[in-house]
Amino acid sequence: MQFSSSLLENAVNEFAKLPGIGKKTALRLVLHLLKQDNKEVGQFSEVIARMRSEIKFCRRCFNVADGDVCAICANSMRRQEVICVVESIRDVIAIESTQQYNGVYHILGGVISPLDGIGPDQLHIEALLQRIEKDKAEELIFALNPNIQGDTTIYYIQKKLPAASSLRITTIARGIAFGGELEYADEMTLARSLQNRLPVESYVRNN
Amino acid sequence: MQFSSSLLENAVNEFAKLPGIGKKTALRLVLHLLKQDNKEVGQFSEVIARMRSEIKFCRRCFNVADGDVCAICANSMRRQEVICVVESIRDVIAIESTQQYNGVYHILGGVISPLDGIGPDQLHIEALLQRIEKDKAEELIFALNPNIQGDTTIYYIQKKLPAASSLRITTIARGIAFGGELEYADEMTLARSLQNRLPVESYVRNN
Repeated sequence: MQFSSSLLENAVNEFAKLPGIGKKTALRLVLHLLKQDNKEVGQFSEVIARMRSEIKFCRRCFNVADGDVCAICANSMRRQEVICVVESIRDVIAIESTQQYNGVYHILGGVISPLDGIGPDQLHIEALLQRIEKDKAEELIFALNPNIQGDTTIYYIQKKLPAASSLRITTIARGIAFGGELEYADEMTLARSLQNRLPVESYVRNN
Repeated sequence: MQFSSSLLENAVNEFAKLPGIGKKTALRLVLHLLKQDNKEVGQFSEVIARMRSEIKFCRRCFNVADGDVCAICANSMRRQEVICVVESIRDVIAIESTQQYNGVYHILGGVISPLDGIGPDQLHIEALLQRIEKDKAEELIFALNPNIQGDTTIYYIQKKLPAASSLRITTIARGIAFGGELEYADEMTLARSLQNRLPVESYVRNN
């Protein structure tokens, strides 16, 4: 692409660095911003810069936070003794959107994946183990993506927990998605969904 | 979507204002930026703000420019007496990418479209007419999108030109796209492509 202005070219190149944004999309976004008020674009740019420089990570759950502790951990209405273990901030947002969960979170920052060079030490596992003890956790809910890395991580953390603990350890249910069709489900999902079948009364009660 | 940080939420909202970017994509982009160095994000934000506040529009052709005149108009190697009339900056970039054009441009900033409330006065038509006279233009090439608004604009500008002028007025060829298939072309395109058929010698020479 040939540009008649280096200011335009630099802006397009910056946008094109973002994931999933090619040069053509970047140009479309930049030309859109060019049409906006100077003030609005100033706000856009300032909000992005502030977000990166001022955002903090919650020292309890490693979620993004405006202060030392995130809004979820600081909320006294939430059950601090139920901890949902997730991979990333995005998973927290997905679960929060269901408005069905009233506990707190712990963000691992990834899952154990030797092929990608990610071992337990690079994740917030040690902090989770300390937190379980300190906060007298009653339940640990694993909400990791259903794949080998996720299962390995669950297995690893479980082994690290004291054997004689009264901690309840659960994982979110795997099964056929709501609205999904049996014939298109893969065998693994279908098999797990059969193994973990529910009594119809409880199914009817929850739906 | 529920966020645990207002800094994050504001950044996502700013990105989601961009065209074609929804909340989920905005979140993906913001979380990507969050993983980058503070310095890199600072650069992203500064380049965008500078682009908007410092960019100028060429006083001859209305293209984006770093100074008073854009790099194309300032280039003495280009034929200043051949003017290609386009709708937007994006069209200039598309034509420049072909590396086949050695004249200059004139950006109208839109096309005449009464339904959208865009009349000739909102476009850079008066400036074009003055420029044709002042720069002793020899050829005017219309490279507008092939639709009713584009055709109306060509017709309007043509009527405004002095009748006894030696100015050559052309429009880019409409026809079957290279690699396109006859049977899928619409009737209008096919009809125009038949009307404007070329002698085979000239076709072979150009390809």
